[in-house]
Amino acid sequence: MSKRLSATADYEELLDKYDTWLFDCDGVLWRGDHLIDGVVEVLSLLRERKKKLFFVTNNATKSRKNYKKKFDQLGLKVDVDEVFGSAYASAVYISSVMKMPKTKKVYVIGMKGLEEELDEEGIAHLGGTDPADNTLADFSLKNFHPDPNVGAVVCGLDTSVNYTKLSKAFAYLHRDKDCAFLATNIDSTYPSAEGLLPGAGSISAPLAFALGRKPISIGKPAETMLDCVRAKYQYDPERTIMVGDRLNTDIEFGKRGGLATLLVLTGITHESEVVGPNASTTVPDFFTNSIGDVRAVLS
Amino acid sequence: MSKRLSATADYEELLDKYDTWLFDCDGVLWRGDHLIDGVVEVLSLLRERKKKLFFVTNNATKSRKNYKKKFDQLGLKVDVDEVFGSAYASAVYISSVMKMPKTKKVYVIGMKGLEEELDEEGIAHLGGTDPADNTLADFSLKNFHPDPNVGAVVCGLDTSVNYTKLSKAFAYLHRDKDCAFLATNIDSTYPSAEGLLPGAGSISAPLAFALGRKPISIGKPAETMLDCVRAKYQYDPERTIMVGDRLNTDIEFGKRGGLATLLVLTGITHESEVVGPNASTTVPDFFTNSIGDVRAVLS
Repeated sequence: MSKRLSATADYEELLDKYDTWLFDCDGVLWRGDHLIDGVVEVLSLLRERKKKLFFVTNNATKSRKNYKKKFDQLGLKVDVDEVFGSAYASAVYISSVMKMPKTKKVYVIGMKGLEEELDEEGIAHLGGTDPADNTLADFSLKNFHPDPNVGAVVCGLDTSVNYTKLSKAFAYLHRDKDCAFLATNIDSTYPSAEGLLPGAGSISAPLAFALGRKPISIGKPAETMLDCVRAKYQYDPERTIMVGDRLNTDIEFGKRGGLATLLVLTGITHESEVVGPNASTTVPDFFTNSIGDVRAVLS
Repeated sequence: MSKRLSATADYEELLDKYDTWLFDCDGVLWRGDHLIDGVVEVLSLLRERKKKLFFVTNNATKSRKNYKKKFDQLGLKVDVDEVFGSAYASAVYISSVMKMPKTKKVYVIGMKGLEEELDEEGIAHLGGTDPADNTLADFSLKNFHPDPNVGAVVCGLDTSVNYTKLSKAFAYLHRDKDCAFLATNIDSTYPSAEGLLPGAGSISAPLAFALGRKPISIGKPAETMLDCVRAKYQYDPERTIMVGDRLNTDIEFGKRGGLATLLVLTGITHESEVVGPNASTTVPDFFTNSIGDVRAVLS
């Protein structure tokens, strides 16, 4: 059963037990463009106590550099090396895990941030923000000349998704069973400031349906994201905690990695999914209303 | 086991046994813009023998009237009342099965043909070909004012599918559990003249994924299409045969309706899916290379 944190001693105990803190961002630190109350103080407190902090996001629409700007705008001081995004993890996966030869290319359904991370890893890519593929004009295979060097299709959230991109990606994957099918993440929904929108998983879903083949998903809850963190920093899983607002991504991710897990209720999950008869089978070790609650130790 | 037809007597027997012939079109009568060899003669032969003919298509991009033009162009004489499309069946389902009040509206992800069939049934609709929704511009819920009268979302193949349409449809379905979620059909692929493209099922797939809810599919293999035929014409299922090129739509459709089934190999299905160790569990009563083979009885 999940432990509800409420007393000052609960939060003190958490600070004592965990040296490394992994945070999901949207729904934990902010919601859309609104900082969650107390986040500045809590991050300062953690830094004062010499905790290692990492920010782990499935958002693949922005590169780490650009994602850091969001922190800057909200007045949160972080280092770009503390930020791990699913676009970055996807690029690392393609170059280091798949070891895709440099002569090969990736067909992208996704946005600028994903392309930037592929560029950083020296991975050639097609599609994405290319104006030729960002069109609602009719698509015909007659005018399509597939690039024989495409060795993977990667799908992230793409608010310019369209039938041309889907058809090209389908063609690459359908013609060549060895063409890798990757998704930066398969979040069902995306929490915009004004409410939920279809998430990155709904961008790869048409291909998965048409092909009868599921993508390899890189972001949370897959361990690939944690492998990326681990490649850069040593940490002791027993003294590491994952803080998130989604049971099926954040909490599942922490559990798969053998980390402690703290669910906050400022995001997508309702308390009834944590306790009571309709609780999820994914049980966080701890839950609290908001990360801001950790401020209790300051009073 | 499926019976392979080859002798003249096989085709004569078919003509004796079945009075009503239901045809799938693409892959059976034509492929893309190319008529399949012998189709004109075979349809003439069936009409001479006083057979009732129906053309049952999952294609929801065209209304029956417009779909008939395709027959005209290819030199096939059919009556519009002989044509049954999944767009028409969807409209009939909304008005006659769901009995959606006339004050309610449908949000459409689909093309002109679907809108025309909704118009014919007097069903108000939003989205679809509305230029405001056919855009790759950023979508924000901030500027979206949902119509409180939307009672259903219907998805057909839409080559202008985009994030605005998906987000609006998602919003209608997510806000209101009673909002019906319909798909004209859920074909995984669409057979264009130049090869396969993502099908209508890949248009509803993003919503199904984001919502965790499957659409009610109207087209083959669902019986709704057959209910539409039945509403207009009496036929004896024992003396009716469904001719198609897809096991999981056409043949499944015939079987569910208690009809005899004839698979042709001019479309999507390979012989190895009908006979041998890798055969599908959906077994047509008969199979033959092409509908043109029925010409054997003429010689």
